[in-house]
Amino acid sequence: MKNCERTELDIEKAAEFLELPPSKVSELIEKGNLKRNWDEYYDIYRFQGHAPHMEDGTVLIDHHGNFELVRGFPKIKRAMLLESAVLNNFRDIPSVAVEEKMNGYNVRVIEFRGKLIAFTRSGHVCPYSTERVQNFLKPDFFREHPDLVLYGEMTGPENPYVQKEIYGIESLDFFVFDIRYKNTGEALPVHQRRELADEYGFNQARLFGDFSINSAYSRITEIIRELGKEGREGVVIKDPAMVLQPVKYTCSESNCSDLRQAFKFYNEAGRDYLYSRVIREGFQSHEWAESEDEFRERCLRLGESILRPMKKTIEQVESGERISDEFRIRVKDRETIFKFRDYLDRFGLYIDLGEIERIGDEYVAEIRKMNKSTNDKTVAMLEGQLWS
Amino acid sequence: MKNCERTELDIEKAAEFLELPPSKVSELIEKGNLKRNWDEYYDIYRFQGHAPHMEDGTVLIDHHGNFELVRGFPKIKRAMLLESAVLNNFRDIPSVAVEEKMNGYNVRVIEFRGKLIAFTRSGHVCPYSTERVQNFLKPDFFREHPDLVLYGEMTGPENPYVQKEIYGIESLDFFVFDIRYKNTGEALPVHQRRELADEYGFNQARLFGDFSINSAYSRITEIIRELGKEGREGVVIKDPAMVLQPVKYTCSESNCSDLRQAFKFYNEAGRDYLYSRVIREGFQSHEWAESEDEFRERCLRLGESILRPMKKTIEQVESGERISDEFRIRVKDRETIFKFRDYLDRFGLYIDLGEIERIGDEYVAEIRKMNKSTNDKTVAMLEGQLWS
Repeated sequence: MKNCERTELDIEKAAEFLELPPSKVSELIEKGNLKRNWDEYYDIYRFQGHAPHMEDGTVLIDHHGNFELVRGFPKIKRAMLLESAVLNNFRDIPSVAVEEKMNGYNVRVIEFRGKLIAFTRSGHVCPYSTERVQNFLKPDFFREHPDLVLYGEMTGPENPYVQKEIYGIESLDFFVFDIRYKNTGEALPVHQRRELADEYGFNQARLFGDFSINSAYSRITEIIRELGKEGREGVVIKDPAMVLQPVKYTCSESNCSDLRQAFKFYNEAGRDYLYSRVIREGFQSHEWAESEDEFRERCLRLGESILRPMKKTIEQVESGERISDEFRIRVKDRETIFKFRDYLDRFGLYIDLGEIERIGDEYVAEIRKMNKSTNDKTVAMLEGQLWS
Repeated sequence: MKNCERTELDIEKAAEFLELPPSKVSELIEKGNLKRNWDEYYDIYRFQGHAPHMEDGTVLIDHHGNFELVRGFPKIKRAMLLESAVLNNFRDIPSVAVEEKMNGYNVRVIEFRGKLIAFTRSGHVCPYSTERVQNFLKPDFFREHPDLVLYGEMTGPENPYVQKEIYGIESLDFFVFDIRYKNTGEALPVHQRRELADEYGFNQARLFGDFSINSAYSRITEIIRELGKEGREGVVIKDPAMVLQPVKYTCSESNCSDLRQAFKFYNEAGRDYLYSRVIREGFQSHEWAESEDEFRERCLRLGESILRPMKKTIEQVESGERISDEFRIRVKDRETIFKFRDYLDRFGLYIDLGEIERIGDEYVAEIRKMNKSTNDKTVAMLEGQLWS
């Protein structure tokens, strides 16, 4: 541990920087709303659980009494009825930029003490993502633009959170979807951001184009139908100037694929998670003025995406197997595997590390997360216990 | 108001009766876990919100310092996998009695100061149910058995809570499914209870028979398939001696019918309500070892039961209508209609009273409950607001 670099937080200075009374900063720390990191990230703090005027997951970095903020991901609201949502939310601008919403996990990247680091949505420094971004992103961007933060999606199958084969990515990759200023969180306009990312050779979420407000609904609907067929997630509709708030909209196939994944572990499936996806189906079916056949197809798709994985789980457990979440991670530094395991441990997520294989100059680790709750519940039901 | 009959609670005596320290009784009252009724039921209290050793909805009656308890409905646990549940829960007895679980609302009936009164599940005295039971039940049972409480289901279309046409009941009727002693809540054995109810000419939940533990699963499965076709709810499986706890099991069609009703008011639909019904489908499908065709039929049924009513609601609201819950009640005393409205008012349930029609010696009132939340949400979405 490099204790030499550690700083104790100067409450007065932090308060001044945050424009809060010092007593408020102390209170945030006491109540656990401003939490410090550990080991080499000891000087990095994250806001969690409704700190005032701060997005959850916002990060405060203490450079020996000088501070920087990396703002959390602003929550993107969802269109249920796309046409009216576009007309209503973007009525004051001539056109919207439509980009793909990719299905992976969000990270924010900055340079910290000579190394790139990746923050998760909650503001933790993920050791796996952090190691990976070193390979994905050249550091010159961060040296030339120390005031900017890259916001992007980690996508691909070798992904501890959301494994997807659909993007044709062999392992994992990073796609920029936002560049924002430190401290204020102000976003670069869409096209300026895309040019800048291009300049540095970064992957970016696909831009489908700029559409006039009146044509946007039909263009986006075509896009959504196509994305749905390919198993992709959906789109984010943006004010090109990034002044108005973006709006997201997703494919039915993606909702259903979420449910399929969730109901494999039916006893852990969130009630809200189920409900919100069901609701999206109802609105899209209405908006698309579906025929009775199309509607029944949607109902079948919805029902199957819930019951099929659940049924399979019961069958598996009955036959003596236990279900688990399995995935691989791929690293250059073998140590990262163990760091990542310890990192998950801190959240109470215990994993089984399987074989570690050397492939070229990298190591691939097989990881298995046991889903104790669903396994136990299924065994209990098979033994004839009652639900509740 | 008949103030003359009102008693102030003697905490010491109540505590002695309840076998609790007087300080505990005072605390229950202060915390709102023991609440008194109003008007002519001022001397009746109900337990709510986890009072110790007392089912929610248990009623305490104060006869001028002498007390009686009407115990709440014991929660009946649910079988998910019927065969193992029967074998496991009833392994120590030779056979089970299987009765129909009817779909209506539960009430408990006793005589109080010369009149029958009906308690809802939560222990309130429902004015409509109370008026109705006077017609359904002859009071001699209660005079001859003042130590017993009738537990039964109010079923039929003229029902403020669960309207069902399937039972061929024109208005509303009461079906006894349990008779229990006051104070202890001890239940009469199934056949003794059925004979006693018969003696007084009471309607009863249908008895399908007593089945040996080993044949019960296949017999009940047949019954469930038949009940499902008829749109009925399911069964309760009982130890004939009523020593072991009963177990309930329901039809897929009934789960789906619940969802159809709930998703008409999609914004009020409970997340747990949805989740629990979905889970039942998964287990039943597994246990019935369904063919791929049968399975897809179940998935379609599930999907349709959620999306069809929701879609219809959106269409209705878009066309300018507003959705509401409509039902009728039928009374002999016109005043009961207004008493019932005031009663719902106390729970924040505001109803529109429509036309009151005189039919024979009774009055039929049309009632409409507005579902503000779903109407408002649908209008907001149609106007292009975002979900959240």
